[in-house]
Amino acid sequence: MDDCKMTLAEQITEKINLKTKPQAALGRLEALALQIGLVQNSLNPQLRHPAILIFAADHGIAASGVSAYPSAVTVQMVRNFLEGGAAINVFCRQHGITLQVIDAGIDFDFESHERLIPAKAGMGTRNFLHEEAMTDAQLQDCFKQAAALVSQQAEKGCNIIGFGEMGIGNTSSASMLMSCLTGLPLAMCVGRGTGLDDEQLKHKLNILTQAKENHSVPANVFDALKCFGGFEIAQMCAGMLQAYKHDMIIMVDGFIASVAYLCAVSINPSLHLNSIFCHESDEQGHKNLLEYLNAKPLLNLSMRVGEGTGCAMAYPLIESAVRFLKEMASFESAGVSQIKERP
Amino acid sequence: MDDCKMTLAEQITEKINLKTKPQAALGRLEALALQIGLVQNSLNPQLRHPAILIFAADHGIAASGVSAYPSAVTVQMVRNFLEGGAAINVFCRQHGITLQVIDAGIDFDFESHERLIPAKAGMGTRNFLHEEAMTDAQLQDCFKQAAALVSQQAEKGCNIIGFGEMGIGNTSSASMLMSCLTGLPLAMCVGRGTGLDDEQLKHKLNILTQAKENHSVPANVFDALKCFGGFEIAQMCAGMLQAYKHDMIIMVDGFIASVAYLCAVSINPSLHLNSIFCHESDEQGHKNLLEYLNAKPLLNLSMRVGEGTGCAMAYPLIESAVRFLKEMASFESAGVSQIKERP
Repeated sequence: MDDCKMTLAEQITEKINLKTKPQAALGRLEALALQIGLVQNSLNPQLRHPAILIFAADHGIAASGVSAYPSAVTVQMVRNFLEGGAAINVFCRQHGITLQVIDAGIDFDFESHERLIPAKAGMGTRNFLHEEAMTDAQLQDCFKQAAALVSQQAEKGCNIIGFGEMGIGNTSSASMLMSCLTGLPLAMCVGRGTGLDDEQLKHKLNILTQAKENHSVPANVFDALKCFGGFEIAQMCAGMLQAYKHDMIIMVDGFIASVAYLCAVSINPSLHLNSIFCHESDEQGHKNLLEYLNAKPLLNLSMRVGEGTGCAMAYPLIESAVRFLKEMASFESAGVSQIKERP
Repeated sequence: MDDCKMTLAEQITEKINLKTKPQAALGRLEALALQIGLVQNSLNPQLRHPAILIFAADHGIAASGVSAYPSAVTVQMVRNFLEGGAAINVFCRQHGITLQVIDAGIDFDFESHERLIPAKAGMGTRNFLHEEAMTDAQLQDCFKQAAALVSQQAEKGCNIIGFGEMGIGNTSSASMLMSCLTGLPLAMCVGRGTGLDDEQLKHKLNILTQAKENHSVPANVFDALKCFGGFEIAQMCAGMLQAYKHDMIIMVDGFIASVAYLCAVSINPSLHLNSIFCHESDEQGHKNLLEYLNAKPLLNLSMRVGEGTGCAMAYPLIESAVRFLKEMASFESAGVSQIKERP
């Protein structure tokens, strides 16, 4: 076939098929190589300056006893991120991934810190059991600030970005959004979060069911975000949309990040072209959401940490995809015979 | 609890549980950290000088038309390994893993090459359709040479080792061994290898069924290896046994490496303590073998390359387990509140 008449997808596929391995034998790495080549519009894609942004915020709903941990842990864990002691710090150091920590709306006034990016939309959301989690202005602020942060990464040369989160109570926000946007019953969207027992889980489901009854059905994804929050989910959603505009590869982490993706992809359905699902979380609800999205993450290590840890763990696999496409010899260059002709 | 009275397993588990994350939230990484700590008898395990050994050999059975590729490809791919152009080269470079290529019995006299280790047990096995694949002396030679190679790695400070293979026809050997040692019918052990179509797969199953009928039932694992080969499988088996003696972590790759593990674990059942299954191969038969072994690999990327590629892809995950245990802050050191007391 004449190279000029081949589409880029055909050219990348041919390049993959001429590598010294049985046809299709690199499995999902081959699909990744094709995807990344198409996003970068290149036969020779490269990953540059990988980054993970952690958006942290507090949640009014936490006051209703939906989490195993007290709200104070949001601040404490953010300090831990800044000090480098959390799981995501370890994995980002391991893989040379830039980590940024964003105050999307924590209920605490931090001293200024070179590694903490202020992007507060408020001092935590309001309790959506009783009222809308955020105002219109706050939602717009979330979209504006997160878009700017992602654009800054793009300007620095980053072309692959992951989104993580921290926020006591945020699985409740995520479950509400998932139920609203997918139409799945709340029971299929709610899980144990950071470790609720059976009774606490029942309480969480009751609270969320009541919250749903207390509000009219949101008209669209923006209304849903305003109604059920949280600030970090809105910022992740906006960040993903902006990353798409910059032709970045988007690494989607666990349950909460997948809900942010769900919001973002309902706004821009093309987002899926740039997105790689990294890890299937043990959080109940994630499995159902992945099925709904027809997504199969690269990893299932039974983790449920959030923070973008799944993105960091999957990053070397994504890097392998780009590397084999670049570095492997072809049958011709290596002098290796191809598959036998059928007799 | 008094530290002195705790077992090492309890101490490692406590160390894991005090890290700043919800209990058990790092999932399989936590199990890996415990396993590696126990193998190294240390609360602070470390991975040093990771290595992958690729054992390559030819197979007499290839003459009976059981592979999609001609036997000449074994030599060609070994040259490719030596030149650095194969998938395993790319992934080992990516992760700083030492790669050794071993001529376990290729039907070709290689010029001497600094990166090719000669450990030939013969010029390929004999065709087990008609006769035993190897002699007693050849089997003993395989065990001796592979053990020496692994000991050399241990002397260089390597404490984590993976085993890969290359050998046109070796899925046939592996299927025969699997069927003999597990008692599973051949049809559950045979797959498409490097890419047989339906008709070719049927032919392969017929040939292997006939081969099984042509031999008496092997009395033990050594007889099975002698009867059905191959040299690389025998060497991988011996290498794993030796790695265990050196308290190394053993990375088990795909179908053929798992059959070598099956042989090795029937000789030394304690081997499982040191072993980490890295990748579930797309090769039919591997799934059944993993079920038989009650093993759940870290990855399933639908690869079927062999060469130790699954080990290389899983290595960073294993490294993450050791790193979080070492580097993450504890609740106390980071000043993070632990889970709320139940009211």
